[in-house]
Amino acid sequence: MTAPTPETLSRLKAALGPGGWSDDPVVLAPLLHEWRGRYEGGTPLLARPSSTTGVAEVVRICAETGTAVVPQGGNTGLVGGQIPTGAEILLSLTRMTRIGPPDTVNNTLEVQAGAVLQTVQQAAEAAERRFPLSLASEGSATIGGLISTNAGGVHVLRYGSMRDLVLGLEAVLPDGRVWSGLTGLRKDNRGPDLKLLFIGAEGTLGIVTAATLKLFPRPADRAVAFVAVPSVEAALRLLRLAEEKAGGDISAFELMPRIGLDFVLRHMPDTRDPLKTRAPWYVLADVETARPGAADTLTAILETGAERGWLSDGVIAASAAQEAELWRLRESLSEVQKQEGGSIKHDISVPVSRMADFIRRASAAVEAACPGARPVPFGHLGDGNVHFNISQPLTEDMGRDRTAFLARWEEIAQIVHAIALELGGSISAEHGIGRMKRDELARTDPLRAELIRRLKQALDPKGIMNPGKVV
Amino acid sequence: MTAPTPETLSRLKAALGPGGWSDDPVVLAPLLHEWRGRYEGGTPLLARPSSTTGVAEVVRICAETGTAVVPQGGNTGLVGGQIPTGAEILLSLTRMTRIGPPDTVNNTLEVQAGAVLQTVQQAAEAAERRFPLSLASEGSATIGGLISTNAGGVHVLRYGSMRDLVLGLEAVLPDGRVWSGLTGLRKDNRGPDLKLLFIGAEGTLGIVTAATLKLFPRPADRAVAFVAVPSVEAALRLLRLAEEKAGGDISAFELMPRIGLDFVLRHMPDTRDPLKTRAPWYVLADVETARPGAADTLTAILETGAERGWLSDGVIAASAAQEAELWRLRESLSEVQKQEGGSIKHDISVPVSRMADFIRRASAAVEAACPGARPVPFGHLGDGNVHFNISQPLTEDMGRDRTAFLARWEEIAQIVHAIALELGGSISAEHGIGRMKRDELARTDPLRAELIRRLKQALDPKGIMNPGKVV
Repeated sequence: MTAPTPETLSRLKAALGPGGWSDDPVVLAPLLHEWRGRYEGGTPLLARPSSTTGVAEVVRICAETGTAVVPQGGNTGLVGGQIPTGAEILLSLTRMTRIGPPDTVNNTLEVQAGAVLQTVQQAAEAAERRFPLSLASEGSATIGGLISTNAGGVHVLRYGSMRDLVLGLEAVLPDGRVWSGLTGLRKDNRGPDLKLLFIGAEGTLGIVTAATLKLFPRPADRAVAFVAVPSVEAALRLLRLAEEKAGGDISAFELMPRIGLDFVLRHMPDTRDPLKTRAPWYVLADVETARPGAADTLTAILETGAERGWLSDGVIAASAAQEAELWRLRESLSEVQKQEGGSIKHDISVPVSRMADFIRRASAAVEAACPGARPVPFGHLGDGNVHFNISQPLTEDMGRDRTAFLARWEEIAQIVHAIALELGGSISAEHGIGRMKRDELARTDPLRAELIRRLKQALDPKGIMNPGKVV
Repeated sequence: MTAPTPETLSRLKAALGPGGWSDDPVVLAPLLHEWRGRYEGGTPLLARPSSTTGVAEVVRICAETGTAVVPQGGNTGLVGGQIPTGAEILLSLTRMTRIGPPDTVNNTLEVQAGAVLQTVQQAAEAAERRFPLSLASEGSATIGGLISTNAGGVHVLRYGSMRDLVLGLEAVLPDGRVWSGLTGLRKDNRGPDLKLLFIGAEGTLGIVTAATLKLFPRPADRAVAFVAVPSVEAALRLLRLAEEKAGGDISAFELMPRIGLDFVLRHMPDTRDPLKTRAPWYVLADVETARPGAADTLTAILETGAERGWLSDGVIAASAAQEAELWRLRESLSEVQKQEGGSIKHDISVPVSRMADFIRRASAAVEAACPGARPVPFGHLGDGNVHFNISQPLTEDMGRDRTAFLARWEEIAQIVHAIALELGGSISAEHGIGRMKRDELARTDPLRAELIRRLKQALDPKGIMNPGKVV
């Protein structure tokens, strides 16, 4: 890709109008920096259109002039998908934040791509409904970015990922035409579902400008348990037992290793171990019910689980404050890992039934390759998705050794990913491919990469949409 | 498309081996006849491979020789998608029926495309799990066909359609290569979800040969109610109330008009009106819970609904036999319509909040165009999907007038579909496009048709996969 000519830039600026663009380095700097510091980019122009028509106009000019475009939402992505590399214009959707009003009979909410997740959750709450997507970056992540990366989070077990929560969407195609699929339809069998092309495509097939989201009834009751389990296998047996007894009411089932809890207790103020004895693994289970009785249901699950030896201890939160305390243990995990030195992160999935095997094999392989490395696998056990993060070994000079440890990222990732793939898993469960895993995708699954390239060729023959990402 | 040469046919027969093909008209006849009699086809050869390798070999020969292929499962489709028109070979998947074993930790079941839905349901039951897809043709419809048409049925409200129930799939690409996506992963963000290209594509982008299906826990308790409601609006209010009180436990919420119930009572032996007074509309509600208490939940819903004037009467089945009786009233609706003369059928969807409006407007428009015509809208209210069927007017010579009535199919369909589209709806909610609605799709949504054609060009540049269907 070559940079746009001054003439092209002038055309874009004229189309965007005052306030619709910037090339001020101070404005651009935070948008060109990936928050974990792995990607730094550049761009000749930030475009900030305020409407779908505006986005379409920008893309039309880009298509005519062969100018590449990188769409960006809240810039919370973890794989570099949202960062332009120098020649591409940066298209920010953050001025397009319109939400609603909710349709409480259809249980849907139409929102623009730049709306922040938390604001959308609040709009649903205000209508006595729930938009269930929930993840750490919800205060800044936007709907457009969440759709483009098919975001997951802690409630996938019950509600699915973004792909399951979008009933319709509007996207600007790579030639600047608008695909208007903003329906609130729950069934539509007019051929393959085209909106699914844009979900998880990381902006490589078009630019998501708005969506019709599914809403759900708010639960009447809730209960949260923190449970000590002897093994990952036991945690999985407990999960299936919980589903048997509570059906779809299990809204989260998160795994934590003891080392992770230790990190939290060590580095996070005002935390305490909720249980008296140490255990190798913990589960945070959240039950939300339409009828009263969530705690009774959870108690029955834990009692049966204890009888069968699948848990050694457990506590059910007695108040909303206690629920928040238990959740804070889980939610602090990423944060506290920073206090333990460098961390090599993996976002893998395997079939749920292979998870125990995966964790055992991957931990052993990593420890063999890098003695003293400390695996901290945690996350969405019910989805077969753990964040298999590895903290650097404890040494005398952690600061000095951090760099050497992180330099081994690719090597360690290959070891971990090979085991996930061997078990029928994925090298990217929820964070996407972006720049980070593009070459690895092509190497580990060439047919998938070829088919994605063919789709891209079909929809974006000029290759202007987020080039160099995914494939 | 031109017919395959004798040489091509010989190659195919040799590849398929004895028992793997037929050109016997007696064998072919039932496979070339659509069961409602709207489509009659022809083919030079029936291919019945017994493995994915066999399917791949057939498709490779077809790709090399430019021979068109029509895949067929249980031949229960309603839009002509499964019927070859003369020059295409007919590829039946019905020898590929392998099922399982179930993975009860991952809650998945791997099945071949030719497995019949009912057999799959039974395999899940045998493992104390549930595969929830349920529809009238479940005794003959196959998994491959159900995937290719993204089948729905009566439990979509709770479990989604086939698209939501497939975790992974295997497909033979139009060049004869095998796309192996038979993972049991609940999360996989390696770019857009490629399996979704094949779901609902009606065999135009490749041939589905196997799938990994999601299983669910079996419910512990169930209750079924038959409820008289004053209007479609009231039925919808009742639905949202039911969801508020029972969350995701509402597994079906089906609408029936009084005229439909009259048809059933008139023509179906051993049926009776479960309620004492007549009402304009009825709802069949099914609640399935993980804990005991389904009937209590349903009673609470009906009590509140009655207080608010959203229902005038109702009964909750007191036994499994009564549940079956109530369901039989709903399930007989298609069948008994045949006894009332010709019927023009529509399979539309609109946002749930527009359904009352749709039924009112479409009924009035049809009655204006064809005085005496009798609309019988029924079906999946919770999904915004009714089968808007219209029985011919009552006249002195119904047999004679039947033909004249059915001759107006296209005219009436255009009236009904225009109203659905105006309300943001679809002309095919669950039956697909096939041959029946191909031209109408191109006319009513040219951009959608163009994008589907581009996908087809990308994956099937020779145009050999089920040509002339969908686009």
